[in-house]
Amino acid sequence: MEKSEQKRNDPRGSPEYVKNPHVAAMKEDILYHLNLGTGTHDLPAMFGDVKFVCTGGSPTRMKEFIEYIAVVLGMEDPKSEYPNICEGTDRFAMYKVGPVVSISHGMGVPSIAIMLHEVIKLLHHAGCTDVTIIRIGTSGGLGVEPGTVVITKQALDGKFQPKMEQIILGKTVERSTELDQGLAEELLQCSKELNQFQTVTGNTICTMDFYEGQARLDGAFCSYTEKDKQEYLHKAKEAGVCNIEMEATAVAAMCNLSGLRAAVVCVTLLDRLKGDQVTSSHEVLQKFQQSPQILVGHYIKKQLKAKAVQG
Amino acid sequence: MEKSEQKRNDPRGSPEYVKNPHVAAMKEDILYHLNLGTGTHDLPAMFGDVKFVCTGGSPTRMKEFIEYIAVVLGMEDPKSEYPNICEGTDRFAMYKVGPVVSISHGMGVPSIAIMLHEVIKLLHHAGCTDVTIIRIGTSGGLGVEPGTVVITKQALDGKFQPKMEQIILGKTVERSTELDQGLAEELLQCSKELNQFQTVTGNTICTMDFYEGQARLDGAFCSYTEKDKQEYLHKAKEAGVCNIEMEATAVAAMCNLSGLRAAVVCVTLLDRLKGDQVTSSHEVLQKFQQSPQILVGHYIKKQLKAKAVQG
Repeated sequence: MEKSEQKRNDPRGSPEYVKNPHVAAMKEDILYHLNLGTGTHDLPAMFGDVKFVCTGGSPTRMKEFIEYIAVVLGMEDPKSEYPNICEGTDRFAMYKVGPVVSISHGMGVPSIAIMLHEVIKLLHHAGCTDVTIIRIGTSGGLGVEPGTVVITKQALDGKFQPKMEQIILGKTVERSTELDQGLAEELLQCSKELNQFQTVTGNTICTMDFYEGQARLDGAFCSYTEKDKQEYLHKAKEAGVCNIEMEATAVAAMCNLSGLRAAVVCVTLLDRLKGDQVTSSHEVLQKFQQSPQILVGHYIKKQLKAKAVQG
Repeated sequence: MEKSEQKRNDPRGSPEYVKNPHVAAMKEDILYHLNLGTGTHDLPAMFGDVKFVCTGGSPTRMKEFIEYIAVVLGMEDPKSEYPNICEGTDRFAMYKVGPVVSISHGMGVPSIAIMLHEVIKLLHHAGCTDVTIIRIGTSGGLGVEPGTVVITKQALDGKFQPKMEQIILGKTVERSTELDQGLAEELLQCSKELNQFQTVTGNTICTMDFYEGQARLDGAFCSYTEKDKQEYLHKAKEAGVCNIEMEATAVAAMCNLSGLRAAVVCVTLLDRLKGDQVTSSHEVLQKFQQSPQILVGHYIKKQLKAKAVQG
């Protein structure tokens, strides 16, 4: 495909995902936590065709996702070998099949922010266009049955504000956590077509702590009562919150800033209005975790089919 | 050893590490991210003798550390098999030899906070006393030669304040990030005895982001100049900062709150006054990362020897 054609196929033109004038002046860029770099790897050859980056906390789950997506797209490796592209580091694990990258992000905003900084630069160096980033994760639900998939409308902080605060050069900077509403709607439509599991759209709280930050009573520290907890969670429910996790604001803020289409699709492992501990069996949790993969797999297949018809 | 004796050997009595009245009322406690629990594991039998918890970001490095500490303490497994105690989850990896636990913490405050909540509850359920927690990590240096080991005096946030801010039930809570100065001095003394690598004590900035949060010019986003960056880093230097990393405030705040002795011992991989990218070879970085392990191994051996003489 010629470069001009590639641009024509991209409805939003060819946006510059990297918003940093210094990057152009760098002789070499070492993507330290991915164990990749412009001086050591031919990034356009390796990643130039990428259209979807799917990410979740666990490296094992992201390996399972690439195996699944290979089947969905009919691109299975006959030997079923999907090498970890980030081999040589254990910070993140990355896999690729056709236009789909599957990468782990660890737990929490700082961890996923490192991954996103380096993946956004990777997409830039590889000359990628029209890329969509989707987090497929796990979360605690709020007033929904365990196993429900939540597609995030708005990513909120622990004070129910749609923003991410960061300290840059000693000053607090606020970034908007808007997500692509069209993409969220398309994903919801996919779930209706599949009709395999309950799916809702709703707001998502992203916290910096799993225990006190999410009003749990079962952490090493807790200085509030069950009543305080229920009040907070009910206030969240009133703010349209359907689930709580630990990465949504970073996905929203960073993709928003770079101009990448992004979505957050998380399954709920428990209903936080009814408890704090994850008590379901390993088998049930495994099944739950497949739902976001099935949903996003269906979406990707549909998108690629539509593009093939257009092309 | 009888319980009374155990208490007598503990100079600080037997503090309650968990500060949460709800934990005592729980029938079972599932330490979800460790894949351990009071209903499924005999935690006192597995962990009752633990005196040192050493932690670092990378699971591979923490496996190397347990192999190293086994040699240092003369407690090598003849088959060199050190099973991952958290097998069944890939969130953290945990190893144990004698009184030493080695556990990974991932990257960033939220990730290490999950681990610390669950490890502090683990120590509680196992009835451990007189425990010391030491982070052995990597960092960016400030005006020190790459390879220098920094023992943290004070853990600071990105505004050079010795505190950690958390949102709990929608309100911002501030926690002190005091570290044990006696322990820092003892570790410095150990490094003098070893005389193998440069070691200093100094303040450590802990950030929520590796790129903009640490004034790097090489992230996906950057809206400041080299001059702005140098001004910020020089102000940090004036505040006694010797290195920048991503977990120190959580270690300090959470161990402080629970009454655990804690230290942060990080090697510097580069001098941030001279650059942003980690350009040293894999071999050089591997060597650097061994220094905190050697230092903490020496400290643990010395402590156990002193206790054996006392006993």
